[in-house]
Amino acid sequence: MPTPQITAIHDAVVPIKSSIRNAFIDFRQMTASVVAIVTNVERGGRLVVGYGFNSNGRYAPAGLLNERFIPRLLEADPGTLIDASGDNLDPARAWDVMMTGEKPGGHGERSVAVGVLDMALWDAVAKIEERPLHELLAERYGNGNAAERVWVYAAGGYYEPDKGLAELQAEMQGYLDLGYDTVKIKIGGAPLEEDLRRIEAVLELVGDGGRLAVDANGRFNLDEALAYAEAIAPYGLHWYEEAGDPLDFDLQAELGKVYRPPLATGENLFSHQDARNLIRYSGMRPDRDILQFDPALSYGLVEYLRTIDTLESLGWSRAQCVPHGGHQFALNIAAGLGLGGNESYPDVFQPFGGFADSERVVDGRVGLPRIPGIGFEAKANLWAVMAPLGARA
Amino acid sequence: MPTPQITAIHDAVVPIKSSIRNAFIDFRQMTASVVAIVTNVERGGRLVVGYGFNSNGRYAPAGLLNERFIPRLLEADPGTLIDASGDNLDPARAWDVMMTGEKPGGHGERSVAVGVLDMALWDAVAKIEERPLHELLAERYGNGNAAERVWVYAAGGYYEPDKGLAELQAEMQGYLDLGYDTVKIKIGGAPLEEDLRRIEAVLELVGDGGRLAVDANGRFNLDEALAYAEAIAPYGLHWYEEAGDPLDFDLQAELGKVYRPPLATGENLFSHQDARNLIRYSGMRPDRDILQFDPALSYGLVEYLRTIDTLESLGWSRAQCVPHGGHQFALNIAAGLGLGGNESYPDVFQPFGGFADSERVVDGRVGLPRIPGIGFEAKANLWAVMAPLGARA
Repeated sequence: MPTPQITAIHDAVVPIKSSIRNAFIDFRQMTASVVAIVTNVERGGRLVVGYGFNSNGRYAPAGLLNERFIPRLLEADPGTLIDASGDNLDPARAWDVMMTGEKPGGHGERSVAVGVLDMALWDAVAKIEERPLHELLAERYGNGNAAERVWVYAAGGYYEPDKGLAELQAEMQGYLDLGYDTVKIKIGGAPLEEDLRRIEAVLELVGDGGRLAVDANGRFNLDEALAYAEAIAPYGLHWYEEAGDPLDFDLQAELGKVYRPPLATGENLFSHQDARNLIRYSGMRPDRDILQFDPALSYGLVEYLRTIDTLESLGWSRAQCVPHGGHQFALNIAAGLGLGGNESYPDVFQPFGGFADSERVVDGRVGLPRIPGIGFEAKANLWAVMAPLGARA
Repeated sequence: MPTPQITAIHDAVVPIKSSIRNAFIDFRQMTASVVAIVTNVERGGRLVVGYGFNSNGRYAPAGLLNERFIPRLLEADPGTLIDASGDNLDPARAWDVMMTGEKPGGHGERSVAVGVLDMALWDAVAKIEERPLHELLAERYGNGNAAERVWVYAAGGYYEPDKGLAELQAEMQGYLDLGYDTVKIKIGGAPLEEDLRRIEAVLELVGDGGRLAVDANGRFNLDEALAYAEAIAPYGLHWYEEAGDPLDFDLQAELGKVYRPPLATGENLFSHQDARNLIRYSGMRPDRDILQFDPALSYGLVEYLRTIDTLESLGWSRAQCVPHGGHQFALNIAAGLGLGGNESYPDVFQPFGGFADSERVVDGRVGLPRIPGIGFEAKANLWAVMAPLGARA
């Protein structure tokens, strides 16, 4: 067998179609990069191709991919990209190659570009092993057994023009009908009183505060964060997410002193160093609070494994991690590493959001297809975007 | 007079020629983006063009400029980019336009792209006012009087193949001959014992520990940082810079507990939020320690003004700020706002490093040309790169 080798990397920019907005951004302009890493390894009569894309909320890093990270992989001595067995690619070594010449600090944008390629590398590695990624991860980094089903919650409740309480309730009922047990809505894009009416409208539907989470997308200053905390504390919500600026750890700490139900944050921290600072300084509580680092936006799984190590060394359980992003990569990681769950955006951020077509959510949990790799081939609208890229000459 | 308006933005990628390396990166691959913002405002019979470039250590953000930040400026309603008088552009409003649709957190790469454009906007604003930028800044944000000369130190002492102690001394002697009173060398790219011999070789030359700073470029873990601290403390150096990872504030705090002479860091923190966390958590000492945030890498002067406000609200003086980068933009900011000084890299990072050709360093201080704008027209090798860009059709 020849040494596994990357023979080409193709990329494209694809719009993420959505009319939604949160407290900070309008997603109508949002784009994603998709990459195909073509290898010389044959499985099932075809060359293995690994695919990756970037998670929502940050833009397609096309320039960064083509200026720095794709060339570094393609120009590397192939021997520096393979594992000790010599039979497969090694994402950790590829990570070192990609980050050559990069200074420490400043973890944004490039963390997305590296994340896209890291996702594609893991897809290729699992396909070369002819195993679903979550099973491979459980064996290498988990307890040996991947979870068959992962808890997912339905993130929605965005502000949209002409969307009233009835429409919000209808949206949430749709998620319940799909099999979700927990839903999430945005707050902070409307005055507190209006947001309380939105929360109460959803509680009317789901019954229990523990089945509704709220997300401020980092827009509150301390006073606003505390005002919302006081107003919503009696509902006992599933969590109160990203109240203030993601780097304002003092705000988070003040909030934790007065708000007893679970808090959540982390989707806008993109390195294990930033994650470590959150744990060190924000007063987040390991017995209840939730960490939402998105491996696809944060230098990929190679870095996420460092983040998990960091968390565990600081007394946290990986079960407190519920990644942002609602994508199959994080779902595999959640199943394989034993995380607490994964985000899900039914119907939005297409074709990137969501899981395999064959898998239905039942009692708030979803399964993973048992096909080699991350499972993109089992999601038709995503595969329709990826397949032509992998077939490009 | 017509409303001031941006009529075109041109950009190019230029290599930063250098054979040097520090503890983290090899600068031979380093690039910079240069931009020219063309306006419809006539001064001296010509249309005003503002120029900007990115500081060293981070790569040319060409993709980010062209994918997001240049289009946002060009597509903006011109009325959203002008100041209250209606006679000039307003960099703060342009900043809001550039950051539209950007989520909080993840401050890297895009901070460089925005910084390049912010620099060009300030150059244009000062040219429209027909004043040197440092004088304009002193009036708007300083004490009214710009410093005529700014303390600068010579940053060098990089590791290079076949560079021994004699060559290091010759390099440092060259800086003293140029008029600098303080020099800086790299540490951490060689074993401690060898670095101590390098330090002692330079001290032999400069005489006083207060005339030599050392820079580890963030490579040490805590044990290494403390070992160096113990070994170099007796020298009483000018400062000990970036011992550990720029985001490892605990490491910085531990270091400050045992190392009494000045510490310095901040060149790899790219937002006022990251700067605030440094101040909150690193134990940096406002009576002696130095903050090196580089406005060109950190979303430009609009954000740097927020950083200064943040520092002052936390009990720091702006006199403790000595920006990284060795460029004319930071020199204008240092002179105008009353910072403690500015970095300088004699002969390296050309054509971007360094100041006006007419200005000599005397007793460790350098002046600024009294021409409109940042002063690029007074630096021949830089102007040779910029002028064709501004003249592009």
